[in-house]
Amino acid sequence: MMSQPVIDDLYKLRHSLAHVLAQAVLKLWPDTKITIGPPIDTGCYYDFLFAKPISDEDFKTIEKEMRGIINRGQTFESQRLSIKDAVAFWKGKDQQFKVELIEDLATKGETEVTNYRNVDADGNETFVDLCKGGHVENLKEIPADGFKIMSLAGAYWRGDEKRDQLTRIYVAAFASKDGLKAHLEMLEEAKRRDHRKLGVQLDLFTFSELVGPGLPLWTPKGTMLRNVLDDFVWELREARGYDRVTIPHITKKELYETSGHWQKFADQLFHITTREGHEFAMKPMNCPHHTQIYASRQRSYKDLPQRYAETTTCYRDEQTGELHGLSRVRAFSQDDAHVFCRMEQVKDEFLKIWDIVDTFYSTVGFKDLEVRLSLHDPENFEKYLGTPALWKNAENSIRELATDRGIPFVEDIGEAAFYGPKVDFITKDSIGREWQVATIQLDINMPENFDLTCINEKGNKERIVMIHAAIMGSIERFFSIYLEHVAGMFPLWLAPVQVAIVPVADVHEEYAKIVETKLKAVGIRTEYYDSSESLGKRVRDGEKSKIPYLLVLGDKEKDSEGVAVRNVKTKEQVEVSLKEFIEKTIRDVAERNLETSIG
Amino acid sequence: MMSQPVIDDLYKLRHSLAHVLAQAVLKLWPDTKITIGPPIDTGCYYDFLFAKPISDEDFKTIEKEMRGIINRGQTFESQRLSIKDAVAFWKGKDQQFKVELIEDLATKGETEVTNYRNVDADGNETFVDLCKGGHVENLKEIPADGFKIMSLAGAYWRGDEKRDQLTRIYVAAFASKDGLKAHLEMLEEAKRRDHRKLGVQLDLFTFSELVGPGLPLWTPKGTMLRNVLDDFVWELREARGYDRVTIPHITKKELYETSGHWQKFADQLFHITTREGHEFAMKPMNCPHHTQIYASRQRSYKDLPQRYAETTTCYRDEQTGELHGLSRVRAFSQDDAHVFCRMEQVKDEFLKIWDIVDTFYSTVGFKDLEVRLSLHDPENFEKYLGTPALWKNAENSIRELATDRGIPFVEDIGEAAFYGPKVDFITKDSIGREWQVATIQLDINMPENFDLTCINEKGNKERIVMIHAAIMGSIERFFSIYLEHVAGMFPLWLAPVQVAIVPVADVHEEYAKIVETKLKAVGIRTEYYDSSESLGKRVRDGEKSKIPYLLVLGDKEKDSEGVAVRNVKTKEQVEVSLKEFIEKTIRDVAERNLETSIG
Repeated sequence: MMSQPVIDDLYKLRHSLAHVLAQAVLKLWPDTKITIGPPIDTGCYYDFLFAKPISDEDFKTIEKEMRGIINRGQTFESQRLSIKDAVAFWKGKDQQFKVELIEDLATKGETEVTNYRNVDADGNETFVDLCKGGHVENLKEIPADGFKIMSLAGAYWRGDEKRDQLTRIYVAAFASKDGLKAHLEMLEEAKRRDHRKLGVQLDLFTFSELVGPGLPLWTPKGTMLRNVLDDFVWELREARGYDRVTIPHITKKELYETSGHWQKFADQLFHITTREGHEFAMKPMNCPHHTQIYASRQRSYKDLPQRYAETTTCYRDEQTGELHGLSRVRAFSQDDAHVFCRMEQVKDEFLKIWDIVDTFYSTVGFKDLEVRLSLHDPENFEKYLGTPALWKNAENSIRELATDRGIPFVEDIGEAAFYGPKVDFITKDSIGREWQVATIQLDINMPENFDLTCINEKGNKERIVMIHAAIMGSIERFFSIYLEHVAGMFPLWLAPVQVAIVPVADVHEEYAKIVETKLKAVGIRTEYYDSSESLGKRVRDGEKSKIPYLLVLGDKEKDSEGVAVRNVKTKEQVEVSLKEFIEKTIRDVAERNLETSIG
Repeated sequence: MMSQPVIDDLYKLRHSLAHVLAQAVLKLWPDTKITIGPPIDTGCYYDFLFAKPISDEDFKTIEKEMRGIINRGQTFESQRLSIKDAVAFWKGKDQQFKVELIEDLATKGETEVTNYRNVDADGNETFVDLCKGGHVENLKEIPADGFKIMSLAGAYWRGDEKRDQLTRIYVAAFASKDGLKAHLEMLEEAKRRDHRKLGVQLDLFTFSELVGPGLPLWTPKGTMLRNVLDDFVWELREARGYDRVTIPHITKKELYETSGHWQKFADQLFHITTREGHEFAMKPMNCPHHTQIYASRQRSYKDLPQRYAETTTCYRDEQTGELHGLSRVRAFSQDDAHVFCRMEQVKDEFLKIWDIVDTFYSTVGFKDLEVRLSLHDPENFEKYLGTPALWKNAENSIRELATDRGIPFVEDIGEAAFYGPKVDFITKDSIGREWQVATIQLDINMPENFDLTCINEKGNKERIVMIHAAIMGSIERFFSIYLEHVAGMFPLWLAPVQVAIVPVADVHEEYAKIVETKLKAVGIRTEYYDSSESLGKRVRDGEKSKIPYLLVLGDKEKDSEGVAVRNVKTKEQVEVSLKEFIEKTIRDVAERNLETSIG
């Protein structure tokens, strides 16, 4: 079943507020044309065709008008109308978009529609909208201090760039003043932890004017982080029988003509014409290449599953305006893997990957992933490769194993990849935003396209299936989410620099160097803050760089072979022996603990 | 000084044989035009303009004629001629290429040239060539069974594709019949160990018709090998303070306009035009990208050297006809590194890299690298970026440190990269072929082009320099050389599968599985050969796959907790305890020993 919005009190409040917004706009600019205005996750919006453009500076005026409407109070009254009467009504109001909506409903077989009229305490009609309902009883129920106009955006009527360009007004709306306040604070916090800003501040990645937008370059610290994460994924995969492979990043177009990507993704491919005139493309995904390793020799059923893993780069010709930090780039690394197996091995292989996903995400600090089965939309079958029977079979397998796993999941029609259904994992970050992260996909089409087989027990060729299983997915995108989730304060095992060594003064440099050597010898990643700057500045620098531990080393520490450990997260400073510090740090890293043991 | 050929007996023999070849050709086809015919490493060649094409089928006839000339014996007599007389002489012979050569020498200031006449026992002139000398006394000194015509090739007169296309005849020539035999055997051996054949046989890499030529795909076994090699290089680098970075594989053309690659390599670049019309290129090398990480913040002298390492892919638009297995490809991985440092740090950094090169190559089994300083050619300065003063300074630094290192080296004029001088390392493989392998390059130009600086002790901006330091270089090319060097029989630490587990029969599978589990638990790479095939076939399969150890497990081994170890290289089979086998194997791998300890 497709996930439907729940019509709860908040939905009603936000939906009603959209009517209030339209009413206020018509009061202020009576010749405005109204279109539609649905509730959304954080409030509502309404799309208008204004006679003259409005701007941010009008927000206060509109909000004031809205508050007035709410405070005076109005009820909703519904009114069923025949198509004919409704068209006449909205023509009379000179609202052509409403007329078009009604005429469309008529072509879909509707014979009646509903108008919702707002009526004030004196029984006067103040506003009418074409609507399916779901409102508060009286506008007074809407907290007048629980909403805020957030922004304007352009939107084409019915999403069609050949139709009128409308102005969308976004409103944040909550059940209380505190609810709104929390939301606005979350947005402020999101700005503060913007990965683009943190990435520069922590020296993790950079963009170059000469290299171009959407093409991040990773510094030593950022690369360390990527590699520690990627090594972790590999460790989980290696334990489950995966092998690494290596493919080139380009190919003749014939590969994608066979896979179907050429037809589906031609726009998004980076195209290359060689000096001999051959047509090549940069890879937008890795599966077609991996099939060619599988297909390089005839496999026996005994050789299956073949599990190929590779962290490698994919390329998409994204438009400049759509690029955003690491979230949307032109070249991204995937920790990709493909399993080539028989249909009866799918369940085991899916569950192995599911284990990897669970272990990886809980270890980095994303607990309780939500699970969504992304299925095909039978009403738009032309979007997909393969036959309805293949899809039904594949989707049943996935549904069965998700059920067996005994976790709650939703099913989402129309969210499948064009080559097969998938299991998507959704997480919520530390400031409440939802993100789709890992995904496991069953693919019954690619093996058809490339004629992938194994020789079975009877000596016959048997069609196999494929599973696509990225864990982080695009490492760039994962990293943008994760960096904001932890606000740059990485757990010890991930931190590119784990320990800053801070001698109090010149005379403590000798001891500090001994400490540095001992930490490095056991693989602890250190940075040395020599005493040419003041102690206060160095401690502030270490805190700004979000290094988990600052070791402040003075007379006392030198004499006792100890270290003063300043825990940057807790702001606590404690004295421990160097030996204890090393032991606990090694353990926290080896166990990939989210919290540090000292301070 | 440029490396000059040594005029030894073998040189004289080969040079004289070129005269014999031309004499034989003129005798057989008198209207042939002769050009030049130098000695080369394995014999000699001569370029002719034939009136009618010749083919492989003429080799026997030519050889017979040559043997007749040798057996009858002739001496060489030199004759100095004025330019005028020489031109008249060769015009009289209707040999226009010789006339052109003499006229060219005249424009370079020569006033006389030398003809060498062959004279037979009766005092008759049999052949004349324009030549600088260096011959045997009498053609009888040439062993008539020490040479063989090898092949024909096309060659343009003076290498200019607008001039006549000549036919080059290659002759292998040695001081004795045995010398020739050894050379021909070496060529046969090279064919047997052709990496393209071994790569398929050992399942290391593959090519796909759909992906295209010059684009290898690496299987699990090949990738394992690559990664073990690459991890070794990284271990050596990490110990010397290198950091890993990560760059995208494409860039706006502006990066290469700044670096100078756009002008120098436009033909070899894979060009991309984005859907928005921007011009991008796939990277043919990594240095320009790495400069952008350095340049992402202002560095202090305290931050230097910055040492960036990355194993990443480069792309060249090679022509299809020039592709060859892994030796010449369109996408190749480089174990690349760049050091950004001050001029006074160059020596230390060069020596560190030199240590890595020495350690890496001796460990994999290439001992005694030859060293060549590749310098610029002052007579063709237009080929290079920068100023003569910059080059002189840089080349002096390199010469000084090579001298300090106390090893023999040669200097090679004109072999520098366009951006700076380099140290090249040359190795000889197990069948005697020479290969240039690692290279260390000093670059004084790129830092100028990208305006790379550090803030020095005085607070001023100071220009830095760069060092380029690949160890394997192109991993594909290195691998093609190495695979042929070891003929697919990798040392234990590198072998993708180190141990094949071969239970004698069904009843030994249980013990065999225990052995497998124990080996895997300590990281030994195994393959299990179940007893569905005959023991003999499985042992042959293991030998064909060049797995270093086959563990044959029967009653005796099971009862004694032992293993029968068949050493595939030595063909010895010995009995040892499982414990001893594991200990010795772990040690051989950890120490990266070239030879195994058992059998």
